[in-house]
Amino acid sequence: MDVLTGKPLSADEVADLGSYWRAGNYLSVGQIYLLANPLLTEPLRPEHIKPRLLGHWGTTPGLNMLYTHLNRVIRRRDLAMMYVIGPGHGGPAIAANTWLEGSYSDTYPGVSRDADGMAKLFRQFSFPGGIPSHVAPELPGSIHEGGELGYSLSHAYGAVLDNPDLVVACVVGDGEAETGPLATSWHSNKFLDPRTDGAVLPILHLNGYKIANPAILARIGDDELTRLFEGYGYRPYLVEGNEPEHVHQALALTLDQVLDEIAGIQAEARASRGTPRQPWPMIVLRTPKGWTGPHEVDGVLVEGTWRSHQVPLAQVRTSPDHLRLLEEWLRSYRPEELFDADGRPVDRLLAQVPPDDRRMGSSPHSNGGLLSRDLDLPDLTEYAVPVAGPGETEHEPTRILGAYLRDVMRDNLPHRNFRVFGPDETASNRLDALYDVTGKAWNADVLPTDEHLAVDGRVMEILSEHTCQGWLEGYLLTGRHGLFSCYEAFVHIVDSMVNQHAKWLKVTRSLPWRRPIPSLNYLLTSHVWRQDQNGFSHQDPGFIDHVVNKKAEVIRVYLPPDTNTLLSTAEHCLRSHDYINVIVAGKQPQADWLAPEAAALHCARGLGIWDFASNDDGSPDVVMACAGDVPTLETLAAVSLLREHLPSLKIRVVNVVDLMRLQPASEHPHGLPDADFDALFTTDKPVIFAYHGYPWLIHRLTYRRTNHGNLHVRGYKEEGTTTTPFDMVVRNDLDRYHLALDVIDRVPGLGQQAADVRQWLIDQRTRHHAYILAHGEDMPEIRNWHWPTAAGHQARQ
Amino acid sequence: MDVLTGKPLSADEVADLGSYWRAGNYLSVGQIYLLANPLLTEPLRPEHIKPRLLGHWGTTPGLNMLYTHLNRVIRRRDLAMMYVIGPGHGGPAIAANTWLEGSYSDTYPGVSRDADGMAKLFRQFSFPGGIPSHVAPELPGSIHEGGELGYSLSHAYGAVLDNPDLVVACVVGDGEAETGPLATSWHSNKFLDPRTDGAVLPILHLNGYKIANPAILARIGDDELTRLFEGYGYRPYLVEGNEPEHVHQALALTLDQVLDEIAGIQAEARASRGTPRQPWPMIVLRTPKGWTGPHEVDGVLVEGTWRSHQVPLAQVRTSPDHLRLLEEWLRSYRPEELFDADGRPVDRLLAQVPPDDRRMGSSPHSNGGLLSRDLDLPDLTEYAVPVAGPGETEHEPTRILGAYLRDVMRDNLPHRNFRVFGPDETASNRLDALYDVTGKAWNADVLPTDEHLAVDGRVMEILSEHTCQGWLEGYLLTGRHGLFSCYEAFVHIVDSMVNQHAKWLKVTRSLPWRRPIPSLNYLLTSHVWRQDQNGFSHQDPGFIDHVVNKKAEVIRVYLPPDTNTLLSTAEHCLRSHDYINVIVAGKQPQADWLAPEAAALHCARGLGIWDFASNDDGSPDVVMACAGDVPTLETLAAVSLLREHLPSLKIRVVNVVDLMRLQPASEHPHGLPDADFDALFTTDKPVIFAYHGYPWLIHRLTYRRTNHGNLHVRGYKEEGTTTTPFDMVVRNDLDRYHLALDVIDRVPGLGQQAADVRQWLIDQRTRHHAYILAHGEDMPEIRNWHWPTAAGHQARQ
Repeated sequence: MDVLTGKPLSADEVADLGSYWRAGNYLSVGQIYLLANPLLTEPLRPEHIKPRLLGHWGTTPGLNMLYTHLNRVIRRRDLAMMYVIGPGHGGPAIAANTWLEGSYSDTYPGVSRDADGMAKLFRQFSFPGGIPSHVAPELPGSIHEGGELGYSLSHAYGAVLDNPDLVVACVVGDGEAETGPLATSWHSNKFLDPRTDGAVLPILHLNGYKIANPAILARIGDDELTRLFEGYGYRPYLVEGNEPEHVHQALALTLDQVLDEIAGIQAEARASRGTPRQPWPMIVLRTPKGWTGPHEVDGVLVEGTWRSHQVPLAQVRTSPDHLRLLEEWLRSYRPEELFDADGRPVDRLLAQVPPDDRRMGSSPHSNGGLLSRDLDLPDLTEYAVPVAGPGETEHEPTRILGAYLRDVMRDNLPHRNFRVFGPDETASNRLDALYDVTGKAWNADVLPTDEHLAVDGRVMEILSEHTCQGWLEGYLLTGRHGLFSCYEAFVHIVDSMVNQHAKWLKVTRSLPWRRPIPSLNYLLTSHVWRQDQNGFSHQDPGFIDHVVNKKAEVIRVYLPPDTNTLLSTAEHCLRSHDYINVIVAGKQPQADWLAPEAAALHCARGLGIWDFASNDDGSPDVVMACAGDVPTLETLAAVSLLREHLPSLKIRVVNVVDLMRLQPASEHPHGLPDADFDALFTTDKPVIFAYHGYPWLIHRLTYRRTNHGNLHVRGYKEEGTTTTPFDMVVRNDLDRYHLALDVIDRVPGLGQQAADVRQWLIDQRTRHHAYILAHGEDMPEIRNWHWPTAAGHQARQ
Repeated sequence: MDVLTGKPLSADEVADLGSYWRAGNYLSVGQIYLLANPLLTEPLRPEHIKPRLLGHWGTTPGLNMLYTHLNRVIRRRDLAMMYVIGPGHGGPAIAANTWLEGSYSDTYPGVSRDADGMAKLFRQFSFPGGIPSHVAPELPGSIHEGGELGYSLSHAYGAVLDNPDLVVACVVGDGEAETGPLATSWHSNKFLDPRTDGAVLPILHLNGYKIANPAILARIGDDELTRLFEGYGYRPYLVEGNEPEHVHQALALTLDQVLDEIAGIQAEARASRGTPRQPWPMIVLRTPKGWTGPHEVDGVLVEGTWRSHQVPLAQVRTSPDHLRLLEEWLRSYRPEELFDADGRPVDRLLAQVPPDDRRMGSSPHSNGGLLSRDLDLPDLTEYAVPVAGPGETEHEPTRILGAYLRDVMRDNLPHRNFRVFGPDETASNRLDALYDVTGKAWNADVLPTDEHLAVDGRVMEILSEHTCQGWLEGYLLTGRHGLFSCYEAFVHIVDSMVNQHAKWLKVTRSLPWRRPIPSLNYLLTSHVWRQDQNGFSHQDPGFIDHVVNKKAEVIRVYLPPDTNTLLSTAEHCLRSHDYINVIVAGKQPQADWLAPEAAALHCARGLGIWDFASNDDGSPDVVMACAGDVPTLETLAAVSLLREHLPSLKIRVVNVVDLMRLQPASEHPHGLPDADFDALFTTDKPVIFAYHGYPWLIHRLTYRRTNHGNLHVRGYKEEGTTTTPFDMVVRNDLDRYHLALDVIDRVPGLGQQAADVRQWLIDQRTRHHAYILAHGEDMPEIRNWHWPTAAGHQARQ
């Protein structure tokens, strides 16, 4: 506070901040436009200009203003602060500011903080071989690219979970604010524990326009706007203006207020238990789009309108008038006051940079692998179920997994680095053993009938797959671990978010300074074959298809067929880094096929022959392959039928846990060499493949394999409704009878006995279907079916 | 208003409504539990109970209460009302009410409004061969299944657009309210014109719990809740209680108020131009979950908690105690007062049913095909561009399409049955000619710098792909036409919504009473190959892969390579019904390949040989296939290089517009017969296929074709960044040089000349890449490349 003026900043301070802001703006415009002459040491000529002008100016001056002021409060308060930039296309601002503060050159010594580095900084932006135009992984301090809008706030909240000293300044663009994921993520404040989590400072940047339209929140008046955010549980502070000094004063005042308020909420909560949820402060910053840029171009208003969204002057190489305007624009920032003759920021600027380890571009949280601590994982053998013989017992795989996850949670509680996320389905997915050791995060009103809610709960449940995903991504990107359990059909809701995370991981793999982060782990359960009670809308196994289009280095897909293989798979995934692991496994009681050691071995191999079910003696007549729990069950039931009725038929059963093993080694790091594939699947025998999902995926993975011409795949072909479990497989021709028919129809020379069996199978199928329609449930012989004991097989043969 | 009590309802009216509500509840419980004994004419025995109890009781009594009261106001006001049920799993309530009102039996005469029909109604629910448990297409009056949460409100708003007399009562579940798509769709009120559109009455049903957790909006206190909805631009009315008479009175009072208010807003707006946006009324209904169901089961509280979400009594067949509780529960509704001995609703109930054509189950809007009017489409020849020779001219395909769409809009303005939807990208996608004849819908504050905004605008732009999609689906399902233009990468945001619409269409195709509705048309532009300025996050062609997993009958995918083929494709899609049409086409200047008639013929065939580019004389050495505008360009450039440098090589060029032609005829209605496929692609020659998207899709579509072993596909392999257009194709090996190399490497016996050409191609590729890195743009010879004229080809040879 300036004692003479009563304003928060003295004139000198305003001038300091103004110079820093000008420097950010100058460096931003330079990146968008300049190939050479970075310090304007000579008059601007067309050849100094990039041939292709790519970048987004509109949001950039606002971001520069914010970065400048955040530096001020970081220094004054010694804050551990990180940025998340929703309008990520404003990349020039962040590149400019990290260069100014030195964290950019620390990360990329070649782009030094001098004239040479400035030239490189300008040239590389949006330039082939350079850096992208967005706040991409290449930028120090970033965990959020911002190209696809909607996830800034959930990323920010995910980052502050279990980081009590961290403040994330999260800029939400007014365009992004219209997206669904963003609109609901404001409610994240009901899941934050002010004692053990850090704070998010949302800054809604209302510059009024999107690409081509006004933004809704900029056009509903201050009253509705204020009520909206009060309704979301915030205390909004409006900072508004187009006159820089006024905005400097107002923003400084407001930032001091809101950070005091955050500190107060935290101090109060941390001093005592059970303080009620307080409204958290947020800022609405209303400044002109394209502020300080060309006011009018070719007779049309640009500053403050959507026309400044991207490149306000487009014809700089060909229009002398545009070239002149650009030079005036650049010189309006008075670069000669900002940089010395060698291009280094002057002391006035350097004095405003926070200490090295407090610079936002140096936040270790933004390079989460630096801080990451591997999970302490309990010994799997304590959870594995004993298996006397294949199929003799049953367990609910996800329930057993729940016990394991409970102890993973328990053992890592001291490190506060593991959370489980789900859209209201953790108990439904039978992982509720977790509640023995932690609660569900909840910081809203509680009633006596509630169960397992806790302000510091580590199970995160909100009925928004987007928010779960965003929180988890933010948590992982800052180096912690997690699992997202989701109904299989509805994980499609986050298809596009997964795309973006996969792209992020792909890029970071080529950035040595980015340390590996824990993998994004999905448990997809309540899957397509076991949504008979909810019907067609809940039946969709296509997420696997979606993820396999992403870079092979990043994607892993597992279909454990029973409890022990699920445990082994989950452990593997929780240990891994930089992957997207998709595990598909059922929650209903399921036969146990493999004993613990056999399960571990099978999972390590990823696929293999199941000797207990095979009778091929090394030269099968047919290979019956399966991937997924229900297809495995139906395959084994079909094998049992065939071995009973056609005992001379030599069947090999191959089970696939790691779907990526099916691809050629040239296509995926897990791909099986062709010779090994041929050894398993033969080069010339029919292969009947029962697959969990859409059958075409198996063809897409195997089309280069020798025996692909003999591969016949059954899977989900989009036939479903509310019905019985067995009717679901019948409707999709994945049932045991149909699989056995497929074998008979494809193995040549089986003779009359097979023809009789064929008719019997058809009759059985018809009989079952009639029973289901009449009784509304599956026949007892289906519900109670068990793999025959070895003795049983012998006796029948 | 009762004059004695001052309450809105007399005691008789309360009793009437109460009886109707009891009937709805009775019929709902009956559906969940009963296989027989529907009227409880004998004591309940285990064999009367379904073996599998599937259904959701929790939300059902609230829905029944609402339906009862909506009938009251429909009758009193002669309202044209439709329902949209966000908690769609409350299907029993809607089946019960449509049966009570008679619309169910009108639709399904077999399920008559008597004891026999009641028995069928009960049995069929969630029963194999029966009806699903949700508000699925099978239910009369439904346009919204509600299985995947989040879209009720955007569907409701889509339905009322251009239906000025329609009121949609939209129940939003408190679970659904947490989803992102729902959270932003409240803002739909800023896009509604009270003069020309109808009204949505949102009813937020706060029954407090989701499956396993409290709902956020139920636990933030009335003050935050009220502010939130005021901030969204509504006037919320809270109706609360667990005592039925009180709720009847409060709900009746409130419904009368809010419908008066809606009528008032509409009357005021329709009487004058330019009235400012008013807050629309909405209702918050706070009633217990599982209301009137078993209060306590096995010593645990059920009514009013999440435990009543699905089936409150689960062991009815085996536990005599549960069976007794169920019988008491059913008899608590006093069925003997509600149905006569023949099972018909008593007169007291029938008197409460609206007139036949006002019953919500009979709303023609909910069976949109009934009301649909085909678009008047202008003659395409007025828009087609003249093509003197292939590649001699260039146009921006979507800009020409924009002119066509402008006139489609203009010609159908009198019918108000066509709208264009997009997330702030209509102008960016170069369809802005539309603004010559209509504006962008906007009913919020306007500034002088705004352009093209209009309260009654017919271009719908909000930066929420979810809301665009939801609006459009609601518009289509009520029989109108539309087009959704979207950046290709970000259409993944609505992957799961597309799934649900595809499933809806698949089911309706087997319901003869549901009339076909206009197709859901996507124009995906700003596509993967032309997002070089936004970079990697904006590059994803996987939506095609996503949709092709849905039922073949429903899915169409088109990749028009130039302007005239785009026009022809778009016209075809706008005429079609019951499909999801995906058109992928660029907006950048593009060579014109086909003259109008040739384009129409090519599109009608879906694929074909391009004679102008081929020199194979019927027996090619290689087939160069292409699908998509950029792959077509690169293929033709490669052909031109090969024909110049290896003139004896016989090349056939096949262009594919209709991707589904590649599938076998057995797999897709558009599938090409094998013989025709073989004739085009040969049975033994190498095929180099340049494809727009992920290359594996082409393999998945063609793996059964004779010549698949020789098929070599290039496409997007997830390599991208901010760079030049040509660098994008180089990074993914889809460039002309690489395609030509692929030919040389696969055609046997080309000899030394080919080896020299091969090296030259590699050198060219290297040279171009170096140029791009040095200059930041593509070489002029790439930017200015044109297909050589026929004379040019001759001269070179």
